[in-house]
Amino acid sequence: MDPSLINFKVLYVVTQLCGLTMIVLVGTWIGEHFGGLAGTDNPKQEFNWHPLFMTIGFIFLYGNSILIYRGFRTTNKKTLKLTHASIHMAAFILTVIALKTVFDSHNLANPPIPNMYSLHSWLGLSAVLIFCLQYVAGFMAFLVPGMKENYKIALMPLHIYFGLFGFVLAIASALMGLTEKAVFAIPNYSELPSSGVLTNIIGVLYVIFGCLVVYLATEPSYKRKPLPEDTALLSTSNQ
Amino acid sequence: MDPSLINFKVLYVVTQLCGLTMIVLVGTWIGEHFGGLAGTDNPKQEFNWHPLFMTIGFIFLYGNSILIYRGFRTTNKKTLKLTHASIHMAAFILTVIALKTVFDSHNLANPPIPNMYSLHSWLGLSAVLIFCLQYVAGFMAFLVPGMKENYKIALMPLHIYFGLFGFVLAIASALMGLTEKAVFAIPNYSELPSSGVLTNIIGVLYVIFGCLVVYLATEPSYKRKPLPEDTALLSTSNQ
Repeated sequence: MDPSLINFKVLYVVTQLCGLTMIVLVGTWIGEHFGGLAGTDNPKQEFNWHPLFMTIGFIFLYGNSILIYRGFRTTNKKTLKLTHASIHMAAFILTVIALKTVFDSHNLANPPIPNMYSLHSWLGLSAVLIFCLQYVAGFMAFLVPGMKENYKIALMPLHIYFGLFGFVLAIASALMGLTEKAVFAIPNYSELPSSGVLTNIIGVLYVIFGCLVVYLATEPSYKRKPLPEDTALLSTSNQ
Repeated sequence: MDPSLINFKVLYVVTQLCGLTMIVLVGTWIGEHFGGLAGTDNPKQEFNWHPLFMTIGFIFLYGNSILIYRGFRTTNKKTLKLTHASIHMAAFILTVIALKTVFDSHNLANPPIPNMYSLHSWLGLSAVLIFCLQYVAGFMAFLVPGMKENYKIALMPLHIYFGLFGFVLAIASALMGLTEKAVFAIPNYSELPSSGVLTNIIGVLYVIFGCLVVYLATEPSYKRKPLPEDTALLSTSNQ
C-alpha cells in the first residue's frame, strides 16, 4: 500500500474517535448540566436537542460525508455519490429538527425570546443556507444525468470549496453557540466549574475534528484515484 | 495576461476593501458604543484596544501576509519571504499588545475578572501559539540559509496548512469574542439595537474576509509561478 495512505488511515480513525467523543460529551453536557431532553411542554429543555442534533448532523455527519470519497476509495464512484447525498440528507434532516427545537425554545418560552438576533444565528443560518444551495447544485450537477462533462469539471472545485466553507462555518457557529450557552446558563463560568470546563473541551474537540476533516479532504496525496469501473459508469451515465 | 489572474485581481481588491471596512467598523464600534480607547487608568476602555489590534494584526495583516506571494507575483522570492516575515512580525507585535490590554482590563478591574476561563480565550491563545510556532519553524526552515531543499519541500505543505488553520482559528476566536462582548455589554442585544447590528455586521465581514483569503491562497490557478531569478537565488543561498 502507498505509505501516505497509512497516515491517512491513522488520521481517519483519530477523526472518528474525536467525532464520537464530541457527540458523547455533548450528550453528557446537556444531560448532566442542563436537565436533558424534553418536548414542547418544556421549551428550556427542548432547546437541548439543538446542540445535540447540530453536533451529530451538521458537524459529524457533514464531515463524514465530505470524507466518504477518500475513506472508501475502493468503492465505485456512483455508490460513493449516492452515499454522499444520503449522508448529507440525514445531516439535513437532523439540522432541520435542531432548528425547529431552538425556534420552539424561544417562541414557547414565557416571555418569548426573540429569534435570529445573535451573530451565532446569522452565521449558523448562513451555513445552513450554503449547505442547502450546495445540496441542490451538487444534486443537479453530479447526480442527475445529463450535465455536460466540462461543466462538471468546472463546478467541482467550487462544490468542494463551498462544501468545506459551509462545514468550517458550521463549526465556527457551533463555537459561538457554546459561548452563548456558557455565558447565559453557567452563572459562575468565570470560575470554570465542571460544566464550563466541559463546554470548553467540546469546543476544542469541534476544532480538532474540523482541522482533521479539512486536512484529510484537501491533502493532495490522499486524493482518491479513479477506478476502472468509474470510467465505464461515466460513459454509460452520459448516454 | 492569464484570464484567471483577472478574477484574482478583482477578488484581491474586494478582499482589501472588505478588510479595511472591517477595521473601520471595529473602530466605529468601540468609539461609538463602548467609549473609545484608554490606558491602564481606565481598564474597561483599555479593553477596546483588544478587538481593534486583533482585527488589524491577527486578522487583516495575518491574511495579507498569507496573500503576499500571490498578490505580488512579479516580485522575487527572497523579497517576498522577507516581506512575509516582516508583516507577520507586525501582526505579532499588535497581537501581543492586544493580549496585554485584555489581561490588564481583567487584572486592573475592581473586582478583578478571572483570565483564561472562556472558550474564546482557550482557542484564541491556541491560535496565537500556532502562529508563534509557525513563525519560528518557518523562519528556521525558509529564511535561515542551510536547510536542505528536500526538507523545505516536505515542510512547505505543513507550513501552508497550519498557517491557514491558525488564520481560520483566529477568525473563529474573533467571532466568539464578538459574541461575548455583545452578550456582556449590550443589555438589549436581543432587540438588535444599532450596536448589536454593528457587532453582527463585523462578524459577517470577518467571515467574508476569511473566506476570500483562504480561497485566493488555495485556488491552484492563482498559484505564483517561480521567476527565473528565484532559481538563481535558490542556488546561491544553498552554497
